[in-house]
Amino acid sequence: MTRTASAGGDTSADNIDSGGGRTVAPEPYVLADVEGPLDRAELTALDAWWRAANYLAVGQIYLMANPLVREPLRAEHVKPRLLGHFGTVPGLNLVWAHANRAIRRRDLNAVFVAGPGHGGPGPNACAWLEGTYSELYSHIPRDGLGMAAMFAQFSFPGGVPSHCAPETPGSFHEGGELGYSLLHAYGAALDNPDLTVFCVVGDGEAETGPLAGSWHANKFISPRRDGAVLPILALNEYKIANPTLLARIPEADLISLLRGYGHEPIVVAGDDPARVHQAMASAVDTSLDRIADIQRAARAGDAHEHPRWPMIVLRTPKGWTCPPYVDGVRVEGTFRAHQVPLPAARGDDEHRAVLEQWLRSYRPEQLFDESGAPVPELIDLVPAQARRMSANPVANGGSLVRDLRLPDWRDQGVEVSSPGATDHEATRVLGRWLREVTRNNPDNFLTFAPDELASNRLQDILEVTGRDWQADIDPRDVGLDRQGRVIEVLSEHMCQGLLEGYLLTGRHGVFTCYEAFVHIVDAMFNQHAKWLDASANVPWRRPIPSLNYLLSSHVWRQDHNGFTHQDPGFLDVVLNKKPEIVRVYLPPDANTLLCVYDHCLRSRHYVNVVVAGKQPQPDWLSVDDAQVHCARGVGIWEWAGNNDAIGTAPDVVLACAGDVPTLETLAAAAILRDRLPELRVRVVNVVDLMRLVPSDEHPHGLPDSEFDTLFTRERPVIFAFHGYPWLIHRLTYRRANHAEMHVRGYKEKGTTTTPFDMVMLNDLDRYHLVMDVVDRVPGLREKAAGLRQEMVDARWNARAWTRRNGADIPAVADWRWPDPARG
Amino acid sequence: MTRTASAGGDTSADNIDSGGGRTVAPEPYVLADVEGPLDRAELTALDAWWRAANYLAVGQIYLMANPLVREPLRAEHVKPRLLGHFGTVPGLNLVWAHANRAIRRRDLNAVFVAGPGHGGPGPNACAWLEGTYSELYSHIPRDGLGMAAMFAQFSFPGGVPSHCAPETPGSFHEGGELGYSLLHAYGAALDNPDLTVFCVVGDGEAETGPLAGSWHANKFISPRRDGAVLPILALNEYKIANPTLLARIPEADLISLLRGYGHEPIVVAGDDPARVHQAMASAVDTSLDRIADIQRAARAGDAHEHPRWPMIVLRTPKGWTCPPYVDGVRVEGTFRAHQVPLPAARGDDEHRAVLEQWLRSYRPEQLFDESGAPVPELIDLVPAQARRMSANPVANGGSLVRDLRLPDWRDQGVEVSSPGATDHEATRVLGRWLREVTRNNPDNFLTFAPDELASNRLQDILEVTGRDWQADIDPRDVGLDRQGRVIEVLSEHMCQGLLEGYLLTGRHGVFTCYEAFVHIVDAMFNQHAKWLDASANVPWRRPIPSLNYLLSSHVWRQDHNGFTHQDPGFLDVVLNKKPEIVRVYLPPDANTLLCVYDHCLRSRHYVNVVVAGKQPQPDWLSVDDAQVHCARGVGIWEWAGNNDAIGTAPDVVLACAGDVPTLETLAAAAILRDRLPELRVRVVNVVDLMRLVPSDEHPHGLPDSEFDTLFTRERPVIFAFHGYPWLIHRLTYRRANHAEMHVRGYKEKGTTTTPFDMVMLNDLDRYHLVMDVVDRVPGLREKAAGLRQEMVDARWNARAWTRRNGADIPAVADWRWPDPARG
Repeated sequence: MTRTASAGGDTSADNIDSGGGRTVAPEPYVLADVEGPLDRAELTALDAWWRAANYLAVGQIYLMANPLVREPLRAEHVKPRLLGHFGTVPGLNLVWAHANRAIRRRDLNAVFVAGPGHGGPGPNACAWLEGTYSELYSHIPRDGLGMAAMFAQFSFPGGVPSHCAPETPGSFHEGGELGYSLLHAYGAALDNPDLTVFCVVGDGEAETGPLAGSWHANKFISPRRDGAVLPILALNEYKIANPTLLARIPEADLISLLRGYGHEPIVVAGDDPARVHQAMASAVDTSLDRIADIQRAARAGDAHEHPRWPMIVLRTPKGWTCPPYVDGVRVEGTFRAHQVPLPAARGDDEHRAVLEQWLRSYRPEQLFDESGAPVPELIDLVPAQARRMSANPVANGGSLVRDLRLPDWRDQGVEVSSPGATDHEATRVLGRWLREVTRNNPDNFLTFAPDELASNRLQDILEVTGRDWQADIDPRDVGLDRQGRVIEVLSEHMCQGLLEGYLLTGRHGVFTCYEAFVHIVDAMFNQHAKWLDASANVPWRRPIPSLNYLLSSHVWRQDHNGFTHQDPGFLDVVLNKKPEIVRVYLPPDANTLLCVYDHCLRSRHYVNVVVAGKQPQPDWLSVDDAQVHCARGVGIWEWAGNNDAIGTAPDVVLACAGDVPTLETLAAAAILRDRLPELRVRVVNVVDLMRLVPSDEHPHGLPDSEFDTLFTRERPVIFAFHGYPWLIHRLTYRRANHAEMHVRGYKEKGTTTTPFDMVMLNDLDRYHLVMDVVDRVPGLREKAAGLRQEMVDARWNARAWTRRNGADIPAVADWRWPDPARG
Repeated sequence: MTRTASAGGDTSADNIDSGGGRTVAPEPYVLADVEGPLDRAELTALDAWWRAANYLAVGQIYLMANPLVREPLRAEHVKPRLLGHFGTVPGLNLVWAHANRAIRRRDLNAVFVAGPGHGGPGPNACAWLEGTYSELYSHIPRDGLGMAAMFAQFSFPGGVPSHCAPETPGSFHEGGELGYSLLHAYGAALDNPDLTVFCVVGDGEAETGPLAGSWHANKFISPRRDGAVLPILALNEYKIANPTLLARIPEADLISLLRGYGHEPIVVAGDDPARVHQAMASAVDTSLDRIADIQRAARAGDAHEHPRWPMIVLRTPKGWTCPPYVDGVRVEGTFRAHQVPLPAARGDDEHRAVLEQWLRSYRPEQLFDESGAPVPELIDLVPAQARRMSANPVANGGSLVRDLRLPDWRDQGVEVSSPGATDHEATRVLGRWLREVTRNNPDNFLTFAPDELASNRLQDILEVTGRDWQADIDPRDVGLDRQGRVIEVLSEHMCQGLLEGYLLTGRHGVFTCYEAFVHIVDAMFNQHAKWLDASANVPWRRPIPSLNYLLSSHVWRQDHNGFTHQDPGFLDVVLNKKPEIVRVYLPPDANTLLCVYDHCLRSRHYVNVVVAGKQPQPDWLSVDDAQVHCARGVGIWEWAGNNDAIGTAPDVVLACAGDVPTLETLAAAAILRDRLPELRVRVVNVVDLMRLVPSDEHPHGLPDSEFDTLFTRERPVIFAFHGYPWLIHRLTYRRANHAEMHVRGYKEKGTTTTPFDMVMLNDLDRYHLVMDVVDRVPGLREKAAGLRQEMVDARWNARAWTRRNGADIPAVADWRWPDPARG
């Protein structure tokens, strides 16, 4: 079988039809008599379902009229643009049909995840056969009219996408980007002990890094606490233009690989429908029996060492049942069947004639009655109501959400006698509250971290639970727990994907990550935000719990880990998504972090990004003050400024967002109070970054009048920002005072050094902020030239001290004492 | 061995020292007599090297003085901040020592990739022992003074990072983010037939998705054309706070997994140095023999089916040779040895005493002479000059760069009789030129694509080469090639990582990707940009070829694939990096794309992002005009506007960047010329986005005077932009006319629809641009109220037509005929 093809896109003899350039229609097939678990009637019925679903898929891809081909197919019946990928559809439909058989026989609570891209016609067809489509979309009844409407809307302007999407009944996984199917499946299974997830993984998708890593997610699935995932590797051997890697390694290697992932693979291979049906029925039966055994043993308290979960390798032809040859070239079973096998069906008479024969090869007259409704034999195969995978409420997670039982965050608040009198590690304080959240919600809340839970100072959660771990446990290991409610794995992709699956099925969670490395999941965030956006417009979908990030070990305190660990740009990625969906919070201290997080865990259908430090930092606000400040999202800190007279405008506004920028701003304000007591300085702190945006651009946006009241319409604003400075310009672009916004932030100047050196490298330090004030306030440069020079000197001194001692100048610790000469 | 630990961070008995809270120093060990390939002298010498490197690593982590511990260790000898991760260092040093033995015996041309994070002390130590450190950094001689300086600079302000970085001799792989070591190693091996890459993969890193997927990169390594990678999985069993997955699955599963990846693993396990040395020497010998056999057979023309490449699993204790117990708790061989085993060595007398004993346990008096230089027995182990891994020029790729032999792009240019008279698929035209580039540079240029080469219309490259493929080839497969110069795998991570490895070692390449899905490698781009930035400041590093992206299937023509495929935000990520490093080009047609890409392939040390469409679009500029326009980067298209009189300011500027925005802008200009002939309209096209930035912020930035000449200082600018609109605001923020910049771009409104509907959804269409002109030019709203209403109607008509017909209005095709009523 193996040989070297020539380079230039030549087509080998095996790819050529001997009939001389013909386009060949598939023959209606006769089901052979094959031994297996299915008796003849069951085999026939199951195959009829499969044919019906395949027919309906072809119809969606091609037809805009004449859905039952009851008249000869004419050009105007065929869509002008042919979209959707047929290649993967027969495999998806086969799995669905066999899953339904198991659901009926075992009364399974099951959902379906379609990993392969653009295979939407399959699950759409199945949902229509099951009646769900018509229940959710009254303009698409389960008859010929509905069929026509379903066909017409597919990949049509105003219609539905070509892959599974929020519009797809029974789907909680969008097949756009590829790579996340297994993670979503496992995330759904967590804390869902009765759930079975049939997860079809495309062999193209299987090449992606995230998918390759996510096979190991089975090490976090407790057979006692969680449901089961049955992965089905759809090995149809081709991607868009190439064979797949897993199809072109020896089968022994493939089996070895899957066993290495901890699975017991069962191979179902062939192109004869009867044989494949029998083998698939047997494989599904065996797999579900094994899953039941594993779960029964675990739930009976028997030790489970390495449950070797079953999985299925389904090796069937790409585009199975489509025309075998088109224009004389092999299509079925090759990459040419990946997308639309007959591309010219509208304009080319031969292609259109073959399309008609292709449709007829499924024998629609046996499948649909006079009205176009599925025949009773097919309806009989539909599981009961909510057991239908297309109607399972798990896949509409919002419909199952239970509110978290949230302990009062104020109970975990820290005492603040006066601003800055004490220090706390903000995330450590949050960890205490998350410990209580974890305790209160033993089956509805999980925390995910890429081996960074303790590094990010959330380890107090481990007082009430352990780290989920189903692999071996060695006596040297600490804190592992078969039922642990913290999931740690050194894969941001896995953390994000499992949490997404958990949220999409209606539960709550937090993902804590190093700020710089959350970029690893930029693309996953994008796709999830798009799901939230699109699903909000699907009337039957209910809002799901928000995706909550806690980004710590942030840019300003990655001084020790160096330049590679310094990147606050996730905020820029996040703010490209719809304002209805995204929220960004930069709490300046422990109590504000608590208050913000309480809000996030109550919210629905957002992405909340919270950036907070883990190092000891001053506490500014008491619990009460924090609550008021967070409710406003932005506010004047009168005690920090020098502008007490009501109604007088300040000479300068020192604005800040983020814990380190807040510290530097307050230190700068202290210097100014001391050295330029007549200067009217206002300090404004921003917790909720979206307050900066005009109110017509974001629901949290401040009206212009309020913004102007805080930031003035014309006075200089020296804005110390956590991230890249231009983000503030972007957010305040339409404000009256935008020309006077002078923003300091991270400008990609980093290295291995000390915290204060980091802010100095980026001109965000207190001394430079004072210089900025002197430079920007009209007339001050002359008046305060001495102070300015003192600041310049203080910076050089601080740098020299740092280089000599490997530590920051002592003055940094006493931020209230503005004596740069002490540095 | 296996049992469930309790949840809350308790420590099992195995973790507790029976001595009652003591901190225990390691004993100097005696090398046992163990059978193996090493004779006693060789064993002793090799172990001495290992001890020396370990000593030097401990010194880097802890000491700022007294490097040879010739006086008792005092607090001031110990650094105030202890950084760097010791846990992984002994493993790295072991591999380096054994690699050196192989290099000497076989005259190997070898480089070293250190995957584990923050293990920098190991390679630093080895480079110093080899003399390279002193050759490259004259202030760090190979003696006691140099040792002191090397120790002091490590993770110290103004010094070097804790992981391998551009500053590290012999490293071309930065160990910041984890996940990419194997990809960089394989990328280095491509087209380097004589190279061996010793690639240490951390077992933490191995959990990441990118790493998990990248084991399959061996399917693209031709034993004839390419060098070899010897992966060494450093299974020290722990991450920061957890065991690793691969250490806690049964060894049979691990072996099965690695065989499934196509490897033949050899396990080296133990904690007795002599035994491990013998086993490691044997494993390295066997592995290199097998590699040599595979390559010899392939190069002799013998068939090679599935070369099963060797690899080594190295299971040794985390922090091997460090203090076994600290404060009564087990450290060596546990996660507690991951970072700094003795955290209180400066302040705590007991810890410091143990640190001193620990240092002495390596017997430095046997390793370094009176001056502090390595003893002759160690120097004897250093390979010759460029054979030293720390000095191999491959790791300083810029020193090996050969310019590409670039064919004249003008020869592939398309004929343009007048602007817009003909259409071409721009990327298809580029593909013809890339075909010639590929032909001309048969060992120096590769193209990478995630199964999207043909989809992005670069398939003409396949006329002169095939797709690299070392797995099975089936007769149905087309275009696969054992020596193919296109690498296609459905993993953006693999494409990016292999290309990075190829570039870092001095060769050239292109990565073509769907625009939306390039976000998958945001984080990898960030890290590579940081490498370019930091390495530019390392005097002995030479500039490497640029990283060239070709983003196609872009947001405006992903109408059919829907919302998930629509995201132009990579540009925002890119522009957060240093201006010295990043370039963004938006060529509007085929000839400009050719010209831009010729420039990119000649450039060094940049990241060039080029966004170009693959669909037929009008050709605007002839070859000559394209060359002039691209050289300028931005320019007035006089023929498109209505502002011929020299010296007169326009009433409005229509600016555009990107192919679809350019088309819509020209169509809008046509409408304006026709309907408001007195309105002076200027059309400005931007190819080089960085021209918009002030000249002091980016080397390509236009001086303000030139910017003002093009865009005026006060006239409205209607800017049609390819990406998210706020990016243009950000870039032009400091320009005089920024308040009059009105930008249209993608505002995250997308769905499955038609191309023109996409631009309408985002208000970027010609009709809306005309409306914008009417709204923004003073006085025009009254004068042109009729035209404005006509535009509004045209939009509604176009939408209705699209919904009815599933296609765009015919008027769109004839962009020069401004009759919206025809829609």
